[in-house]
Amino acid sequence: MKALVYNGPGKKSLEERPMPQIQMPTDAVVKILKTTICGTDLHILKGDVPTCERGRVLGHEGVGVIEQAGPAVTGLERGDKVLISCITSCGKCENCRKGMYSHCAHGGWILGHKIDGTQAEYVRIPFAETSLYKLPEGVEDEAAVMLSDIFPTGYECGVLNGKIKPGDTVAIIGSGPIGLAVLLTAQFYTPAQIIMVDVDNKRLEVAKSLGATHIINAGDEQAVEKILELTEGKGVDAAVEAVGIPASFVMCEDIVAPGGVIANVGVHGSKVDLHLEDLWSQNITITTRLVDTVTTPMLLKTVQAKKIIPTKLITHRFSLDEIITAYEVFGKAAETNALKVIINAG
Amino acid sequence: MKALVYNGPGKKSLEERPMPQIQMPTDAVVKILKTTICGTDLHILKGDVPTCERGRVLGHEGVGVIEQAGPAVTGLERGDKVLISCITSCGKCENCRKGMYSHCAHGGWILGHKIDGTQAEYVRIPFAETSLYKLPEGVEDEAAVMLSDIFPTGYECGVLNGKIKPGDTVAIIGSGPIGLAVLLTAQFYTPAQIIMVDVDNKRLEVAKSLGATHIINAGDEQAVEKILELTEGKGVDAAVEAVGIPASFVMCEDIVAPGGVIANVGVHGSKVDLHLEDLWSQNITITTRLVDTVTTPMLLKTVQAKKIIPTKLITHRFSLDEIITAYEVFGKAAETNALKVIINAG
Amino acid sequence: MKALVYNGPGKKSLEERPMPQIQMPTDAVVKILKTTICGTDLHILKGDVPTCERGRVLGHEGVGVIEQAGPAVTGLERGDKVLISCITSCGKCENCRKGMYSHCAHGGWILGHKIDGTQAEYVRIPFAETSLYKLPEGVEDEAAVMLSDIFPTGYECGVLNGKIKPGDTVAIIGSGPIGLAVLLTAQFYTPAQIIMVDVDNKRLEVAKSLGATHIINAGDEQAVEKILELTEGKGVDAAVEAVGIPASFVMCEDIVAPGGVIANVGVHGSKVDLHLEDLWSQNITITTRLVDTVTTPMLLKTVQAKKIIPTKLITHRFSLDEIITAYEVFGKAAETNALKVIINAG
Amino acid sequence: MKALVYNGPGKKSLEERPMPQIQMPTDAVVKILKTTICGTDLHILKGDVPTCERGRVLGHEGVGVIEQAGPAVTGLERGDKVLISCITSCGKCENCRKGMYSHCAHGGWILGHKIDGTQAEYVRIPFAETSLYKLPEGVEDEAAVMLSDIFPTGYECGVLNGKIKPGDTVAIIGSGPIGLAVLLTAQFYTPAQIIMVDVDNKRLEVAKSLGATHIINAGDEQAVEKILELTEGKGVDAAVEAVGIPASFVMCEDIVAPGGVIANVGVHGSKVDLHLEDLWSQNITITTRLVDTVTTPMLLKTVQAKKIIPTKLITHRFSLDEIITAYEVFGKAAETNALKVIINAG
Repeated sequence: MKALVYNGPGKKSLEERPMPQIQMPTDAVVKILKTTICGTDLHILKGDVPTCERGRVLGHEGVGVIEQAGPAVTGLERGDKVLISCITSCGKCENCRKGMYSHCAHGGWILGHKIDGTQAEYVRIPFAETSLYKLPEGVEDEAAVMLSDIFPTGYECGVLNGKIKPGDTVAIIGSGPIGLAVLLTAQFYTPAQIIMVDVDNKRLEVAKSLGATHIINAGDEQAVEKILELTEGKGVDAAVEAVGIPASFVMCEDIVAPGGVIANVGVHGSKVDLHLEDLWSQNITITTRLVDTVTTPMLLKTVQAKKIIPTKLITHRFSLDEIITAYEVFGKAAETNALKVIINAG
Repeated sequence: MKALVYNGPGKKSLEERPMPQIQMPTDAVVKILKTTICGTDLHILKGDVPTCERGRVLGHEGVGVIEQAGPAVTGLERGDKVLISCITSCGKCENCRKGMYSHCAHGGWILGHKIDGTQAEYVRIPFAETSLYKLPEGVEDEAAVMLSDIFPTGYECGVLNGKIKPGDTVAIIGSGPIGLAVLLTAQFYTPAQIIMVDVDNKRLEVAKSLGATHIINAGDEQAVEKILELTEGKGVDAAVEAVGIPASFVMCEDIVAPGGVIANVGVHGSKVDLHLEDLWSQNITITTRLVDTVTTPMLLKTVQAKKIIPTKLITHRFSLDEIITAYEVFGKAAETNALKVIINAG
Repeated sequence: MKALVYNGPGKKSLEERPMPQIQMPTDAVVKILKTTICGTDLHILKGDVPTCERGRVLGHEGVGVIEQAGPAVTGLERGDKVLISCITSCGKCENCRKGMYSHCAHGGWILGHKIDGTQAEYVRIPFAETSLYKLPEGVEDEAAVMLSDIFPTGYECGVLNGKIKPGDTVAIIGSGPIGLAVLLTAQFYTPAQIIMVDVDNKRLEVAKSLGATHIINAGDEQAVEKILELTEGKGVDAAVEAVGIPASFVMCEDIVAPGGVIANVGVHGSKVDLHLEDLWSQNITITTRLVDTVTTPMLLKTVQAKKIIPTKLITHRFSLDEIITAYEVFGKAAETNALKVIINAG
Repeated sequence: MKALVYNGPGKKSLEERPMPQIQMPTDAVVKILKTTICGTDLHILKGDVPTCERGRVLGHEGVGVIEQAGPAVTGLERGDKVLISCITSCGKCENCRKGMYSHCAHGGWILGHKIDGTQAEYVRIPFAETSLYKLPEGVEDEAAVMLSDIFPTGYECGVLNGKIKPGDTVAIIGSGPIGLAVLLTAQFYTPAQIIMVDVDNKRLEVAKSLGATHIINAGDEQAVEKILELTEGKGVDAAVEAVGIPASFVMCEDIVAPGGVIANVGVHGSKVDLHLEDLWSQNITITTRLVDTVTTPMLLKTVQAKKIIPTKLITHRFSLDEIITAYEVFGKAAETNALKVIINAG
């Protein structure tokens, strides 16, 4: 089969690889229909993720069809169409039983990282019954691909952790795919204001079209002042960091109201300054989270009920043969205006 | 009347001052029976709290008797014995209505800071009905003094924010009065382990006698390793910072388990390093809080029911005339082993 | 001034009454601009509320202008336009401090019940600062009248108590003004299905136009079966009782899913059968609540942000002189299709 | 092997039965060391549980040793000592993933009910990895037997659902084994008062020795008045029903404070009167629950840490050969003062 392989920092290729096989009775092999590229895949290619070894098939998102189910898999069978969760969950360990699948003792984020991933014609999924979701009627394949990672990430790490409530003021720093997924799922809770911040005005325009009530260019020296002004000087109830750099985290510290929350979604490569000399008395909460994908079933319901249209984030489509081009387009988002790109594999 | 007055950095004196007067219909004047000295008073004297002006009577804790109640005060009358909350709360503003009295639009921490405080024979208390608590039967005066500040602080900022639950593993960094108040109130929730950390072995011994299951000297280079070992490598469910320096906050980052909480109680004078490059994916929560004293009624119930003996933290007693000595004793805690000192004013 | 007076069961009249006066320093006198009639007013007139004495001016909802503020009222002044909460809250008692204003030791539901109410030209409001809300910019008078009682009632007793979440299935039994307020505020949380149940098809059509995804006539013998069918046999996550009769509460018992909630909003006059022989093992929660109006500030924000249009429930408008007619129209809702009627008093 | 078999209403016998066999790859066969008898077993024998068929081996509690593990069981192996949960959980279905194991699509309470149970020398446990718990060091076998059912039941259905908090007043109606398990686990949260109610003074004395602050005989005509008096007329914060008859549920309705909780633990055979005509405005919560056993790991930690001594409820010990006598002793608790009886099978 064809697969996109990581060959060390800066190197990737579309290669011929052997078909994956069932290894454990709880595994399934899935024929990929559609997959996509994540910002994390770019991180791996930069060499930022040393736990990902050369030779690894990348990709942790996708929709496919069960090709073969292991003998202990009772709830899924050949031919079932499934959403592949970016988080593999055994369902049995202490963390899985607590709903913290991201820290599953036998899974977590392993797909396209510690085991071969979804940017291929087939993929082996361990703990299939607790890591795959049958697609319910009324959920399109492409919508489901968006639910492999970015929508649960935006919703769990940004919206749930941010405790967004009706009437709240929310600021989202970063208007890329993840920030926009926060924006869309934040609206489940009817906040009064959603202020979107980014350096890219085109992305801010997209945010506005998707429900942001205010947009602010992060390059504006008065960005913080403007946000405070929008909240009558109080600061925001929830500040969501969806970039992953110190400057945007510190902006969150500057704009959060007493009693508010800073919900970190971004993947950070370095430490940040936490200004406890100011914040110790401000009754704030800071959260971090690797997505658990515990909300995938609930997100599927909202898609079915047409409460959210995840495909709004899809800007480009490619075949698996074109995946190298797809990476280029996705990697140069500032030029191409790419948000999420769909790779058709099936 | 006699009062302990702040005369600028490093300077204080016991002076004769005019009796406080009712200024607003919601005020009360309280005759002080007992008061105490807080670490924050030492901070003021070092010049670390610029919002506190020279000439200010210090002190924000105490028990007394209503001397005079303003015309709009209906629930309290002359002769009632009351606990004075360190937080003044109007009861009407948006933050008070949300239970965040610390950020009351007209109060907050003002006593012995922005208005004259309790280290005196009399004190004026604004918003008396929502800032004073009638002493219920069965609560001794000295126990009540401990409930003005350190017990609600330890309980709200450390225990409630730390979400301490039955069976949890808890580490408390700092075994001073506040850390010990965290230790005592943490036991309301029956954690399995409470690991107390400090540089002072005598304070650690006190902690052990008050319920710590393990003690670790923070000076030990392997302190972090030892804590991790005690939790089978997982880290603690709740790490409470009760010192207020970067090193102890960073220790909390090093020992918190995935899914755990860092509850900051310490008053910090400088920024700290937040290692988001490690923590972004660890599903942790960090909280800060200036005590709201919303739990004072509940704490009074636990004292009445003898579920907690707050007077265990009292090591010394002085008269108001001896308050300069009391400050010395409290300020040299490493030598004097002082925890809380009671000042008898009445 | 003119006022609508309860003269015992079945009797009411529009009478001339003396102007209300400030009695306590925390009182305010409000000149009424707009008021409305509540189902509870009809209950009083039937003689169902023995705590309401003859001679009482009815009405507990309205918008007006401060005519006079007592000497201890600092946050409001003559000329301020205010929303009058149906619940009077002292802000100081144990229940108010817990946010349970409905059980305020000195207030609660007293307006138009134990003290004279708002169906008059003027009304005295005790504890003015904690029982009145300044109208923010962008909130129309008529929208604000809807926030005196029915919107906080629907939201707090139905939606918050019902723990309605994104993706949920919700059934609301009763499509009168309160049930419709539940329907509108339930949408703050983006449930997947909202099934509206009533005996009146016209009211069900209104529900559909306001966001119900399914409507079911309660007279249909298969109503329960149909609801179960809509939820694939599981039952609903939240069943909201907004009628106040045994049959509709029992319907909630029949349709709630394991793990679900029955949130009672209706005012009941008799006991109901609780089928614990079936429900003991069903992990359900049943809640009751007299509205606390703790969410009034938040509801005002959602109105300001145009997230909800409360005036959609207004069907008729009258002057205070026509209030007897207004009662007739409101009392014969099945014929007149009345939902909420506005009385212009100013 | 020997097994206690239900032979229809009123009939049971100790019989020779074939050894259980692995049927599914996720099964395990456990050699029983110790088991016990539950009130529910008596219900079955009365014929009250029609879903339990003749020929069924009874028992849903116990401790044993893995005899054989199915091929898909990876976390347990022959020789591991395990606690058997009364609830069988597949770990994969929607309800299991939500933590509501009691309503597992493939399990729930099936042991000694729909499949053969633990009052035998061996038992087959489906979904072994998510239905068995390895005994940690420091937990005695007999303590673990108490954690199969009654401790999680008391804790989850009574204490957690009752939202018991430090300083609360709690009433527990029923001082049998389950009520006493509520009493012991309620103390995890340091309530100020625990009022125990029963008709049996001997059981009330046991309650007193285990931490009840007050005891009241339910036969006392003034029982309700006395409870209200103990709470200064307010009623209790949490009323736990641990009997399963209408009278004791109605007592809970009579004594719950506004804002309080009625947590039902009892197994009811008939409907009860819910006095909504009084309670609709009282802001109360009523909960029902079949134990989920989600707290078993946490309870094991509290036993390990010696925060609770579950064996305090054990009054009698028998061998499996004496199980008929054990049933008699347990069935005549009023005469024998039996609480929990241990059956040694291994």
